Amino acid sequence: MSESYPVTRRNKVVRRHERGRYDRATVHAILDSALVAHVAYAIDGQPYCTPTAFWREGERLYWHGSSASRMIRFQSAGVPVCVTVMHLDALVLARSAFHHSVNYRSVMAFGQARLVADETEKRQAIDGFVDRFYPGRSHLLRPPTVQEIKATSFIVMEIEQASAKIRDTHVGDDEEDYELPIWAARYQVRQVIGEAEPCPRQHPDAVEPVGMAPYRAGRTLDEVMTEAARMAGYSDGT
Amino acid sequence: MSESYPVTRRNKVVRRHERGRYDRATVHAILDSALVAHVAYAIDGQPYCTPTAFWREGERLYWHGSSASRMIRFQSAGVPVCVTVMHLDALVLARSAFHHSVNYRSVMAFGQARLVADETEKRQAIDGFVDRFYPGRSHLLRPPTVQEIKATSFIVMEIEQASAKIRDTHVGDDEEDYELPIWAARYQVRQVIGEAEPCPRQHPDAVEPVGMAPYRAGRTLDEVMTEAARMAGYSDGT
Repeated sequence: MSESYPVTRRNKVVRRHERGRYDRATVHAILDSALVAHVAYAIDGQPYCTPTAFWREGERLYWHGSSASRMIRFQSAGVPVCVTVMHLDALVLARSAFHHSVNYRSVMAFGQARLVADETEKRQAIDGFVDRFYPGRSHLLRPPTVQEIKATSFIVMEIEQASAKIRDTHVGDDEEDYELPIWAARYQVRQVIGEAEPCPRQHPDAVEPVGMAPYRAGRTLDEVMTEAARMAGYSDGT
Repeated sequence: MSESYPVTRRNKVVRRHERGRYDRATVHAILDSALVAHVAYAIDGQPYCTPTAFWREGERLYWHGSSASRMIRFQSAGVPVCVTVMHLDALVLARSAFHHSVNYRSVMAFGQARLVADETEKRQAIDGFVDRFYPGRSHLLRPPTVQEIKATSFIVMEIEQASAKIRDTHVGDDEEDYELPIWAARYQVRQVIGEAEPCPRQHPDAVEPVGMAPYRAGRTLDEVMTEAARMAGYSDGT
């Protein structure tokens, strides 16, 4: 498999092309550090954009939903979708309106959505969904019932093409503007995880499992997600 | 104007309908506490999902981009789009895979995108874009050049319909599962703003303007965005 995704008009980063990346390693790292993606699809010409938890296994992206939901019923058939992930990293205030910006890491991934119809693959997806975020957790849970399995559907998308786009610099003003006495600054934005709040009806014997080690209060969610993916064997590096 | 958006199949919350809201106040509050939306559109049947900074004025949503970008050129014509905002508030670990969840506040807004073609409206949008996030800032900046104005386009969408969806509770397990000795907990997720990092080439006379008051390090981005919208007169309450 080549190191980069094929580039066509569909995934080419046209504006600010210097921010674009097509190598799988960069795309995978951005995907693996996220919990939520936004999935775009169009039914009879009407676009929808649904935020959903998702995960990556190799070149496949998975998400799930109620078997009765509009999104799942529509996407089961094998339809084109765009899966977008964006991490907002900073606000950047320049000396002109034009150069105001934000720092971010984003991915747009394209492919055909389809239902995970095979029962074995579906059972793996149920466990995979839990374990990718909370390593080892699927074995600790009350097993799924027949009804729960039936009520839940998984969608898979093979990544045909993707692109990443990254801005990670400071203020970038026109050269002649730097001498103006205008406040210009960067404000970092971090998405952080808090302390565990146990269920009020927690059983007295229940303890936080070792698989929750990535979830240390104060860490960024992307650090947590990246480490959990690595522990669970879902990242490139394992 | 009625207090709620009209409900049709397009914006009806089908699954977990008890989490759905259609009143404008709830929808507006979620939109006003966000900086980034994901905009879905479809070109020749191919869906795209583009993350972008956006803002609300009454029942209109605005975003911008390079006049040469694919998104802007396509959306200028008046096409159906879906604008989605999602705040991730917590991860919720239950005693069964089925009841794992996340807390969130999301909005899906539907309408027709069109170019802001009128020059006066466009100049207002340029200032509005800056001032909505950084109250009063447009007057402090080096004014936009003719070329910058030409290179930037604004898209506006009148909200025809919208729905909000909210989960803000704790672990919700099947009654018989509470007695199991399985760790169940909620982990809050917060998106927080950091200290200002002045531009390394900051002019010695430049000071942080009073309009940046909402940007106090450690606050959540949605508190900051909500307060900035209120200061700038872009929220319902002003």
